[in-house]
Amino acid sequence: MSDVKKVVLAYSGGLDTSIILKWLQDEYNCEVVTFTADIGQGEEVEPARAKAKAAGVKEIYIDDMREEFARDFVFPMFRANAIYEGEYLLGTSIARPLISKRLIEIAKETGADAISHGATGKGNDQVRFELGAYALMPGVHVIAPWREWDLNSRESLMAYAEEHGIEIDYAKQSKKSPYSMDANLLHISYEGDILEDPWNEPEDDMWRWSVSPEQAPDEPTYLELSYEKGDIVAINGEAMSPATVMETLNKIGGDNGIGRDDIVENRYVGMKSRGCYETPAGTIMLRAHRAMESLTLDREAMHLKDELMPRYAKLIYNGYWWSPEREMLQAAIDLSQEHVNGTVRIKLYKGNVYIAGRKSEKDSLFDESIATFEDDAGAYDQKDAAGFIKLNALRLRIGAKRGN
Amino acid sequence: MSDVKKVVLAYSGGLDTSIILKWLQDEYNCEVVTFTADIGQGEEVEPARAKAKAAGVKEIYIDDMREEFARDFVFPMFRANAIYEGEYLLGTSIARPLISKRLIEIAKETGADAISHGATGKGNDQVRFELGAYALMPGVHVIAPWREWDLNSRESLMAYAEEHGIEIDYAKQSKKSPYSMDANLLHISYEGDILEDPWNEPEDDMWRWSVSPEQAPDEPTYLELSYEKGDIVAINGEAMSPATVMETLNKIGGDNGIGRDDIVENRYVGMKSRGCYETPAGTIMLRAHRAMESLTLDREAMHLKDELMPRYAKLIYNGYWWSPEREMLQAAIDLSQEHVNGTVRIKLYKGNVYIAGRKSEKDSLFDESIATFEDDAGAYDQKDAAGFIKLNALRLRIGAKRGN
Amino acid sequence: MSDVKKVVLAYSGGLDTSIILKWLQDEYNCEVVTFTADIGQGEEVEPARAKAKAAGVKEIYIDDMREEFARDFVFPMFRANAIYEGEYLLGTSIARPLISKRLIEIAKETGADAISHGATGKGNDQVRFELGAYALMPGVHVIAPWREWDLNSRESLMAYAEEHGIEIDYAKQSKKSPYSMDANLLHISYEGDILEDPWNEPEDDMWRWSVSPEQAPDEPTYLELSYEKGDIVAINGEAMSPATVMETLNKIGGDNGIGRDDIVENRYVGMKSRGCYETPAGTIMLRAHRAMESLTLDREAMHLKDELMPRYAKLIYNGYWWSPEREMLQAAIDLSQEHVNGTVRIKLYKGNVYIAGRKSEKDSLFDESIATFEDDAGAYDQKDAAGFIKLNALRLRIGAKRGN
Amino acid sequence: MSDVKKVVLAYSGGLDTSIILKWLQDEYNCEVVTFTADIGQGEEVEPARAKAKAAGVKEIYIDDMREEFARDFVFPMFRANAIYEGEYLLGTSIARPLISKRLIEIAKETGADAISHGATGKGNDQVRFELGAYALMPGVHVIAPWREWDLNSRESLMAYAEEHGIEIDYAKQSKKSPYSMDANLLHISYEGDILEDPWNEPEDDMWRWSVSPEQAPDEPTYLELSYEKGDIVAINGEAMSPATVMETLNKIGGDNGIGRDDIVENRYVGMKSRGCYETPAGTIMLRAHRAMESLTLDREAMHLKDELMPRYAKLIYNGYWWSPEREMLQAAIDLSQEHVNGTVRIKLYKGNVYIAGRKSEKDSLFDESIATFEDDAGAYDQKDAAGFIKLNALRLRIGAKRGN
Repeated sequence: MSDVKKVVLAYSGGLDTSIILKWLQDEYNCEVVTFTADIGQGEEVEPARAKAKAAGVKEIYIDDMREEFARDFVFPMFRANAIYEGEYLLGTSIARPLISKRLIEIAKETGADAISHGATGKGNDQVRFELGAYALMPGVHVIAPWREWDLNSRESLMAYAEEHGIEIDYAKQSKKSPYSMDANLLHISYEGDILEDPWNEPEDDMWRWSVSPEQAPDEPTYLELSYEKGDIVAINGEAMSPATVMETLNKIGGDNGIGRDDIVENRYVGMKSRGCYETPAGTIMLRAHRAMESLTLDREAMHLKDELMPRYAKLIYNGYWWSPEREMLQAAIDLSQEHVNGTVRIKLYKGNVYIAGRKSEKDSLFDESIATFEDDAGAYDQKDAAGFIKLNALRLRIGAKRGN
Repeated sequence: MSDVKKVVLAYSGGLDTSIILKWLQDEYNCEVVTFTADIGQGEEVEPARAKAKAAGVKEIYIDDMREEFARDFVFPMFRANAIYEGEYLLGTSIARPLISKRLIEIAKETGADAISHGATGKGNDQVRFELGAYALMPGVHVIAPWREWDLNSRESLMAYAEEHGIEIDYAKQSKKSPYSMDANLLHISYEGDILEDPWNEPEDDMWRWSVSPEQAPDEPTYLELSYEKGDIVAINGEAMSPATVMETLNKIGGDNGIGRDDIVENRYVGMKSRGCYETPAGTIMLRAHRAMESLTLDREAMHLKDELMPRYAKLIYNGYWWSPEREMLQAAIDLSQEHVNGTVRIKLYKGNVYIAGRKSEKDSLFDESIATFEDDAGAYDQKDAAGFIKLNALRLRIGAKRGN
Repeated sequence: MSDVKKVVLAYSGGLDTSIILKWLQDEYNCEVVTFTADIGQGEEVEPARAKAKAAGVKEIYIDDMREEFARDFVFPMFRANAIYEGEYLLGTSIARPLISKRLIEIAKETGADAISHGATGKGNDQVRFELGAYALMPGVHVIAPWREWDLNSRESLMAYAEEHGIEIDYAKQSKKSPYSMDANLLHISYEGDILEDPWNEPEDDMWRWSVSPEQAPDEPTYLELSYEKGDIVAINGEAMSPATVMETLNKIGGDNGIGRDDIVENRYVGMKSRGCYETPAGTIMLRAHRAMESLTLDREAMHLKDELMPRYAKLIYNGYWWSPEREMLQAAIDLSQEHVNGTVRIKLYKGNVYIAGRKSEKDSLFDESIATFEDDAGAYDQKDAAGFIKLNALRLRIGAKRGN
Repeated sequence: MSDVKKVVLAYSGGLDTSIILKWLQDEYNCEVVTFTADIGQGEEVEPARAKAKAAGVKEIYIDDMREEFARDFVFPMFRANAIYEGEYLLGTSIARPLISKRLIEIAKETGADAISHGATGKGNDQVRFELGAYALMPGVHVIAPWREWDLNSRESLMAYAEEHGIEIDYAKQSKKSPYSMDANLLHISYEGDILEDPWNEPEDDMWRWSVSPEQAPDEPTYLELSYEKGDIVAINGEAMSPATVMETLNKIGGDNGIGRDDIVENRYVGMKSRGCYETPAGTIMLRAHRAMESLTLDREAMHLKDELMPRYAKLIYNGYWWSPEREMLQAAIDLSQEHVNGTVRIKLYKGNVYIAGRKSEKDSLFDESIATFEDDAGAYDQKDAAGFIKLNALRLRIGAKRGN
């Protein structure tokens, strides 16, 4: 093994990262710093402290990063209306660059020369963690145990744990979900087990954050979302921080059966995989943001955004948040949001998000006096359209004469 | 006026185009040929014959174009997953190039030197009709009465009709919808009246093709859609023509409250307008096609399609179906569909379209042996990921050393 | 005519705009304010003052805008490596938004309600002037005499001038170039006469800014260009303002036969036109800027710029400098230039611009220790490439198994 | 080592691939099939036969692939006007997919289960060879000796050769160029040695295919190039095959000092590298093809091509010729070339390629009657431009009222 002296481990306190912690200490014979973040996954992070301490860790970081996550990662991404492959709202992807950033900050604070994570060698997360780490600390050493060790089955992991005296909560293991899951403020994801056959419909008890549309209330819920520069700043008139916006919309959305998705996606490492996602807040935010833009954003600015979006989403999916090209796109996107101010009214009903109204006192570009079917009192001269069409058609006519 | 000798009019048989017919005869002193098409708008077209005859028209064309519309226009467009501005499924836009094509064919058959239509000078349809016409017959003369005459209100139109002995069905007029509507196999649209304030939610009795999600059945409906080269060829195992596919999905989708949309969109002529749309079949087709592609389409082919899509949709929205650039994009898109074969299972429930499964016997690119969370028996070497990440990170690391 | 009270005219002092000045006074019966700008066209602007005064103009603006033109328009555009249709360096296009901006500033200062210009109804310049004016003062009235009057030939113009006592410099008229020309710091253009047949090679005495390559010196000229954030700030170590940079490179470039181009281009109004251009400084700047970027710009930032460039160039060509979408692209481009610092050495020889060296003390991304063909002492692990290729190939292999 | 049975080696007959041949026989203990291709590199390929035979090779393939290379790879690429990073004409990149294709064909013919090549682990060529191979034979085993062995210096290679009795032509080695070179019909490239400092100007005796502009003739050379569907089919009226076109233009271009380039480029594997290239025919072909398109290609088709080009060039540079996305783009590009027919007249003079004329009897879209500065007899109504501008400005005006 290499001469790593100190490694910062992204540590959940669960069995897998506890095994990694031990493995790092033994195999690399190095000091381990643990970092546990609350990014809204819905589990207590404080218990990780005692476990790390018990494992001999001296430097233990436990951070509540929910506001930073929502404000600096999720919200900027939603300004872009980002969707990967027409379906995926990037719930896992957008959390990784935040973790990388904090891992590297801690490495610099503690003088560590390496970071480590529990992502496997088949997935996207290893790429996202490591591209972020390298971009922020180019000389960092990255240890990805899943790519190095030979503990390739649950049995071998359990055996390793027992052999090395790592406490196993057998009760928890036995009632463990058969799915591989990941959660944060933006979503919870499910992979594996019966989902590995894309013809299988997920069983209803898999879903954790939302009721099924069938079980959702028979009455719709209406909400008013207030926007400033493309971000939601209030719900039903009540000002809220970004993380609170998301928690609120997750709750209300989940109660109305909003945000379930079931997709086959293309991983950056080259394979297709099947995943199910619950993204209640994100599903609402995407729809409502588009509605706010539809009223306040210039046509060509919107179309430029639409053409750039797939590339932006792909960058985030592939792990390039911390890259010059993502920052360039973000600069363009953020500039476009200057006037995306106003209110969107939405109706939530059994899995559906409907736009029930949009308005903007100062920033609407909808000009009823021009668009009206009634007499517009000269606001628009219909004869202008003749010249507009004639010149737009000119190249087509010349081409047709040639015989296109 | 110019020296037009014979004009082919896109004629519905309704009051507006009846007035145009008379106006053309009087103002242009020219022979009028009428053309009435069934493109699935849900109204009888045959009655137009007697009306045209009564108005002295000698050459009357009434065509059932539903299959051609579905097969040669709607289906190719759905191969592209086309959506305009993130919401609009282009229901009106895609019908116009078909009408233009037939108007020009008839002009050539009848020796006409002009075409005419009933679209106003504020909308997109005039552009779509006329760009198509010019592209197919560069010397054609286009008469757009709404841009020429001074009949700018319903009152002046009625007065003109009475003055010139054009029959007005007062019963029909009085119970007329307050909305400006357009319908074909793909959608029905609503504009005007209370919709002119984008803060107003549409009233439920406006919608004609779908029940509200609240009134939809409490039991979900499952369907299996079979794809060949990106097109649906069978529903629940029963082979169907393109138009029948659409009629079937419109019926089932509408019954389940599928396909209502309410948007503010950017017209090509420069203004924002507000429209409501019901697109049951289209909403299902878009979702299901993406699911079919997710299993069978190469990642980079999909991403290329996703990046080209907004431009493709914009071309169709703006009226450039009959253009070299649309044909170039179509060639790329069609090539990508060679392997988009298989079956998608969908669940329809109160406004929602869920993907409940996708499979493809010969064309699936989902390789469970690689993607599995279980032991993959060497199908994928996780160590490869280390090199993959290292080289993808190299430029970022060099940049970070420089101080990006 | 409309009720225009005061109009600001883009006035050169030449015959055409003198006729327009008179025509505006007579036809619109309004007060005319003249605006004459020095943007490096190489003609004195001060004589316009006496002519305007003689024509009764009370408010006369004569501005030296060379530095603003170079700094705020030309330099930002070159950061994008903008070329229209693979050839045209946008010499005329980029000057128009500056003129529009100043016309509108003057309109606001003088309380004018209209602007006017001497561009014809066939060209791009009318579009550029007017889109800029409308974007900056949405209620402005634009008067484009060439689209309104019936003075469609040189004879009718001369007759109008004589009839209205406008002084004609017959000597100047008779020795007038047969070409329609336009000049500013960035280029001089030629259109018309024998160029109207694209098979004709231009005669050598047409060109005004450069010697022919045949007549250029037999010895090459070397220059060192210093860059800061993508802009040239010094030549051969001598700090210079943007306009001085351009004047210097025009002189040296022209002396070496640099910058002649002869193209058929597509106008925004729908026709193809043929133009010849001399752009000595611009030709050097484009080449050298790319060389500076090749050393200092991240790969993906460069590729993103390359993909956005044609759209950016088209926006400028079509007159959309003052648009939200151009500003979005500019924000992305400008951000990318932070590290484009260093020196490029060029060799000019008989029409050629060769890159003879590039260096950047602090911002080079070229890492000889990695790129070397010699032993790299472990800076790069060649084995990483195996995994990189394997994972990039994975989707292709899965596709091949299916039979792509 | 793995259990490879038979491997097809891309074999030049030179020292490096002779060492690889021996190394494969020894290390893999497998049978080696050699493949040597003439792709216009300007060296005899037949001598490779005796060397292979002497090394015990039983199956020896020596193919003249010049016509296939020019017709099926170079010409289609030039239809796209492909340039990588604004400068590089992809001379090496475009040859690799052809070699991969033939290697795999031979593997299938001879029952080999592996291929091998002499590209290093730092460059792009390994990627191009291997992506192609995997795309065409997904189960193939690839052996890249430079990534496996420890022969990392010239000395260790020579020692290996001596030790294993591989004949070394010491005369050839001693007069060997200090540069790493690669040549084919499209170009010859130089890397390494003093070029590793990008501030160094290459010495004039490095260049092999062209005279320096200083030494080129004092008289220009004019050529007429005839195009059919975007490809050159005749020079000065004489019909020629694709390879002959390239050989002819290389000769004439090189004689006139055409096609030298000196760039820093971004490799797919993550580093910047410096290379010098001579591409006489390619430099002429790019310029002339654009000129032919300028006359015959629709504006928007051209702009679409221009926007897609950087991506197309990047695909080829990165080794994705054999990919669905390259084929999609090619389908769009090829469709656009239907009318790119006619003649371009070029002037070559001391390093410059000037367009001296372009014409197309049947396919020109240049309409002198519309573009003329003289009276156009009504072919174009200038008043149409007013409406065209008004509607294009509408969104900008509404935005300006809001205060964009």
